[in-house]
Amino acid sequence: MAEVQMYRGLRDVYFDKTEASFIDGQVGKLLYRGYNIHDLAQKSTTEETIYLLLHGKLPSRRELEQFDAQLRGNRSIPDEVVQIIRTVRKSHPMDVLRTAVSALSAYDPETEDKSSEATLRKGIRLTAQAPTIVAAHARIRDGKEPVPPNPQLNQAANFLYMLFGTEPDPEEARLMDVDFILHAEHGSNASAFAARVAAGTLADVHCAVVAGIATLKGPWHGGAAEQVMRMSLDIGEPERAEEYVRNVLASGGRLMGFGHRVYHALDPRAVHLKEGCRALGEKKGQPKWFQILSKVEEVMQPYAQRGICTNVDFWSGAVYYLMGIPEDLFIPLFAMGRVPGWTLQVLEQYADNILIRPLLHYVGPMDLAYVPIDRRG
Amino acid sequence: MAEVQMYRGLRDVYFDKTEASFIDGQVGKLLYRGYNIHDLAQKSTTEETIYLLLHGKLPSRRELEQFDAQLRGNRSIPDEVVQIIRTVRKSHPMDVLRTAVSALSAYDPETEDKSSEATLRKGIRLTAQAPTIVAAHARIRDGKEPVPPNPQLNQAANFLYMLFGTEPDPEEARLMDVDFILHAEHGSNASAFAARVAAGTLADVHCAVVAGIATLKGPWHGGAAEQVMRMSLDIGEPERAEEYVRNVLASGGRLMGFGHRVYHALDPRAVHLKEGCRALGEKKGQPKWFQILSKVEEVMQPYAQRGICTNVDFWSGAVYYLMGIPEDLFIPLFAMGRVPGWTLQVLEQYADNILIRPLLHYVGPMDLAYVPIDRRG
Repeated sequence: MAEVQMYRGLRDVYFDKTEASFIDGQVGKLLYRGYNIHDLAQKSTTEETIYLLLHGKLPSRRELEQFDAQLRGNRSIPDEVVQIIRTVRKSHPMDVLRTAVSALSAYDPETEDKSSEATLRKGIRLTAQAPTIVAAHARIRDGKEPVPPNPQLNQAANFLYMLFGTEPDPEEARLMDVDFILHAEHGSNASAFAARVAAGTLADVHCAVVAGIATLKGPWHGGAAEQVMRMSLDIGEPERAEEYVRNVLASGGRLMGFGHRVYHALDPRAVHLKEGCRALGEKKGQPKWFQILSKVEEVMQPYAQRGICTNVDFWSGAVYYLMGIPEDLFIPLFAMGRVPGWTLQVLEQYADNILIRPLLHYVGPMDLAYVPIDRRG
Repeated sequence: MAEVQMYRGLRDVYFDKTEASFIDGQVGKLLYRGYNIHDLAQKSTTEETIYLLLHGKLPSRRELEQFDAQLRGNRSIPDEVVQIIRTVRKSHPMDVLRTAVSALSAYDPETEDKSSEATLRKGIRLTAQAPTIVAAHARIRDGKEPVPPNPQLNQAANFLYMLFGTEPDPEEARLMDVDFILHAEHGSNASAFAARVAAGTLADVHCAVVAGIATLKGPWHGGAAEQVMRMSLDIGEPERAEEYVRNVLASGGRLMGFGHRVYHALDPRAVHLKEGCRALGEKKGQPKWFQILSKVEEVMQPYAQRGICTNVDFWSGAVYYLMGIPEDLFIPLFAMGRVPGWTLQVLEQYADNILIRPLLHYVGPMDLAYVPIDRRG
């Protein structure tokens, strides 16, 4: 057999074009639809950013109001899906989200319609419904009743409201808003790529989002925020951080929240959550998580110069923790924030579709003789 | 921005090695673990072939008996999952299969265990459970009660038994057995690739199989058998086949069941289902589907010389139709047959894991200025 060129992990392989986001991993730059993530994190809202992603331009006030009303009006999930959540309540929250989103396809009036218009509407519905699923499950497994969505609140505040049953502090709601902005889209990371692989067969957007959720569950992808927080809890006190890091490095271990397949510089999203972590920690009288993480980052500085920098997950876990969000909801938070990005990737895939089907190079035995069972050794 | 090398659809891109199956698309050759698909289709059974795939060698009689007992002992699904199937019964059967497999993760004792031993056991359980889900749904939506699995019957016969409520004719059961053999594994087709993308994040095998099902639903992948049968029904009589084909070709249309991303020669799997279609049609007193399809194949002969040949889906639809299986179960049949292949792909991915994360080339606008909403045009 001829030697083949091998692209393991498809690292650095371009499989298509996009207008969704631009990532320059060498300098740590991220644009959504041409707009810098720093501008969006500082000046925009989740609703406006989702509009930008899905429609390709910033909305007028009227367009934004209509879009926001569409999101607010689609947050409810059918009682039958709540019942399914109750049934599988003991599962990992990502498994529950995956099952519930899959089940929602039974109730969406346009499940089988793969036009871009219907796909956009379905993506907006799923964006509105995903937080409802996650919050409902979190309450049900704690023996509480789900809190119905509050149409007076925006996407971020409403999620915290549905989770805790009380209206959130405005600063916390804004931090969650920024978090949703930062997680809305990020090119063809593994979960978005899985969504595109599904869409490439002309499977519908529920299929694609389910594939995205399934892929995001893996600890090498969506699990880092939770693992970083566990590390912080392990470390416990800022003065123990340096020794902890040096021990991990000396034993050949790997610190979570550092490095990224694409970024070889500071992940620009990390900046905003770092500041959020600092401010929220002070407000809550728990500055130590910021102090621990800052110390870890400082000790890792030699690696930063080699391109192994903190990524978005490094700070997000502490932010969620300070808000009182259970650790196993950190990945679902990522997932619910990414539904707009997955939807956009599906729309791009459909717009110039091609089956995504690479090859595996066979290295096993050839042309073995089939021996009847009674003559096998 | 520098020009980039683009690999649209990842066509001809090797992303990893495999010992699962060898495909030579130029001559139409397929090996599972080194054994020719023709030998397996003629001499092996579903159970033995799954053992071969998952364990890498043909079993001794004792090994096969133990493995078969493991499959037979794991066919039941929890009442809660049956209830979920009832809840979403109006969905497409692939959506129901996706939701039910996702929900099964709540009941598997090893969902979060990603060791190869546990993954193998989970893959065997899912292989045993998937037909139970599909058959239960098919009956429930028809207002009938699910038929419990019959441990006296093999994988293929038991599926037909659970679907129809009566023990199948031995010839039909053997044809379904051959069909399962032919569908068990096929490298990194889109659905198996999606399963590997999920596994590449270290997501568990339920995630990977759900991603596979989600991806297989698309009409460009799993839908061909159903579409070929619809074409046969449209044609209606053998004497109308030639005109029908010429009309489709003249109008620039595409005939389903021809051509394949990898095969540029006769799909070796098609041979066995062609013969099965002929024999079953005669037995059932409905030879016309074989006659219609044979005529279509004959008229398409000029294309065959250019590498556009019949594929496995060309004949499978008529086989299922002759068995009385509803058309929208054709894709679930493919899915339930492929669970062993997906499991094997996950095991291979885990064994030398790497995140599968290719790139998208950004072609949108750069560095747009964020304009406050009141100053937008």
